[in-house]
Amino acid sequence: MGGAPIVLSIDAMGGDLGPEAVVSGMARSAKANRDIRFLVHGPESRLQKLIERKKPLAGRCEIRNAPDVVSMQDKPSQVMRQGQGTSMWSAIESVRDKQATVAVSCGNTGALMALSMIRLRKLPGVNRPAIAVLWPSRNPQGFNVMLDVGADVRADAEDLLQYALMGVSYARNGLDLQRPRVGLLNVGTEEHKGRSELKAAHELIGKAATRAQFDFVGFVEGGDLPGEACDVIVTDGFTGNVALKTGEGTASLIGDRLKEAFAYSPLSRLASLLALTSLRRLKKKIDPRRVNGGVFLGLNGTIVKSHGSADATGVSAAIKLAFQLAQSDFSDRLEARLASITDIQQDIAPELDMSEESPK
Amino acid sequence: MGGAPIVLSIDAMGGDLGPEAVVSGMARSAKANRDIRFLVHGPESRLQKLIERKKPLAGRCEIRNAPDVVSMQDKPSQVMRQGQGTSMWSAIESVRDKQATVAVSCGNTGALMALSMIRLRKLPGVNRPAIAVLWPSRNPQGFNVMLDVGADVRADAEDLLQYALMGVSYARNGLDLQRPRVGLLNVGTEEHKGRSELKAAHELIGKAATRAQFDFVGFVEGGDLPGEACDVIVTDGFTGNVALKTGEGTASLIGDRLKEAFAYSPLSRLASLLALTSLRRLKKKIDPRRVNGGVFLGLNGTIVKSHGSADATGVSAAIKLAFQLAQSDFSDRLEARLASITDIQQDIAPELDMSEESPK
Repeated sequence: MGGAPIVLSIDAMGGDLGPEAVVSGMARSAKANRDIRFLVHGPESRLQKLIERKKPLAGRCEIRNAPDVVSMQDKPSQVMRQGQGTSMWSAIESVRDKQATVAVSCGNTGALMALSMIRLRKLPGVNRPAIAVLWPSRNPQGFNVMLDVGADVRADAEDLLQYALMGVSYARNGLDLQRPRVGLLNVGTEEHKGRSELKAAHELIGKAATRAQFDFVGFVEGGDLPGEACDVIVTDGFTGNVALKTGEGTASLIGDRLKEAFAYSPLSRLASLLALTSLRRLKKKIDPRRVNGGVFLGLNGTIVKSHGSADATGVSAAIKLAFQLAQSDFSDRLEARLASITDIQQDIAPELDMSEESPK
Repeated sequence: MGGAPIVLSIDAMGGDLGPEAVVSGMARSAKANRDIRFLVHGPESRLQKLIERKKPLAGRCEIRNAPDVVSMQDKPSQVMRQGQGTSMWSAIESVRDKQATVAVSCGNTGALMALSMIRLRKLPGVNRPAIAVLWPSRNPQGFNVMLDVGADVRADAEDLLQYALMGVSYARNGLDLQRPRVGLLNVGTEEHKGRSELKAAHELIGKAATRAQFDFVGFVEGGDLPGEACDVIVTDGFTGNVALKTGEGTASLIGDRLKEAFAYSPLSRLASLLALTSLRRLKKKIDPRRVNGGVFLGLNGTIVKSHGSADATGVSAAIKLAFQLAQSDFSDRLEARLASITDIQQDIAPELDMSEESPK
């Protein structure tokens, strides 16, 4: 194995567990993958000390000093004006300067998206960038793609079409699916259900399917997110964010209840010892930390947003995803794919009478 | 124990598994609870045969012949015009006539809500009725209330206030919480986040809290649905429906993966035998069938909507919930509580400058 080294840009600050968790996650990834290199952004002396303690990181990191930190409370507008000295800004700048292909940050999502938008700029033809996540599912590939999970709280029919096209591209590169099946999230599968923008989006996405080489399965429901009805689930960032966090919270509650169940009696504790390997395999499959990483789609460069609360395992999962995307030249492929969006939209949109749509 | 018998109105038709599952569920409930009686609606001869086969139902059922069935594909508007002969219509009619306090149906949600609205009518002061569910949570009471989960795909700020007040009443009667904590579902907990109607609702609900004797914790996120930050989660019917189905789908996926993990090797199969009691207890806690039953709030009478796919266990859980609500005189208490909504809204709404709100 072992190709050319791939350089990732890492924002070491701004996560809930501090740079310690980020550097530990980097060390795990470096140990597992010898082709990985890091540009690390944050206060130099502090990072220096943390990195020196981790053997797998020796000779694989370059620190870019950035004294300031974007906190979870900072408003995006404020960070856009005054954020030049922050580790987040610096991490994005390395992608802008083509020193790294992908950046990873555990920081404030709103600020990260705002900074990414102004520094990297949107790809031609993209109206709203989106955040996509992989979600464990019953499909053979083990995961579904859902977007948007929080870049923007609203999306009109054309935005939803763009999300569908970006999601298809992500599923091709991230999940190796040649002809992804796309579903549009709604409260029922009947065509007459849901909000007006969803009916318009249903028509737009259906018309784009043949030319953009995906299958459109129509409306899907919340239960299809971990299901096998489709591979890509398209929704607005408000609904997607709530669905994602509800799913994560439910998985975490069940995990804790499972631990309690096995700790209940001497017999159940013995049982948990016997089932240890099986349970570990299960945990690996459903642990939300292992699918950590929302990908910003629609920008000149790829940003992976890790959970704010990510520990070393979570950070390492986000880095793994960033590495995969960098290795597959995802950014360039998406750009090529999106170059055709404008054409597709021009072909489709005029055929629809959009005048009856609500102005929102 | 054993008070006066309580009569429930049961729509035996329209569920995915047919009247067999409904009658089996009734038999389970009847066996567990000797104070329960049923008015059963559907085709008489077919129901007669099914009921005769179940010993616990002897002398506890009265059949109301209704030859027609509302199917899952029927449009609500159609059922409202032509549904007089259906079991669903008949089941609601028994509540309207005060022959039963609560009705249970596994049928088409849209049709059930539409029929309930025209036959039972909204309570004074209620703009949009809502569907509330109980969701397993980390709170001491074991469940949180979420509403709306699908009565209406949209809700403005005043609707969300009404949902908060109805949810509080449900939490008091259904979960025995004297001072429920209410959270408003959003994509972040900071006050500046989210859609404009949510900011307006935040202000309205905050102002109503003292007078309506609940605590308002402000914005909550999807992860708080199974969490302990609040007891009542308020959202529009689109978001609530997606969140509910995502949570259910995730729980079901994990349950299946758990079964696979225990079937994997001889050792893990032995382990599952040893842990049988613990696992059963766990299953009972997280099995979505056991919290089956969405309650329609805001009408003159209570309707419990069971899952369309409910089996005997699921139907029995919905009947148990219906019995509890009938026993606690929930309907009357909610009406009394809602009588004060109009006052509260008149007190609060004029203070807000609603003119900047979007017209939607």
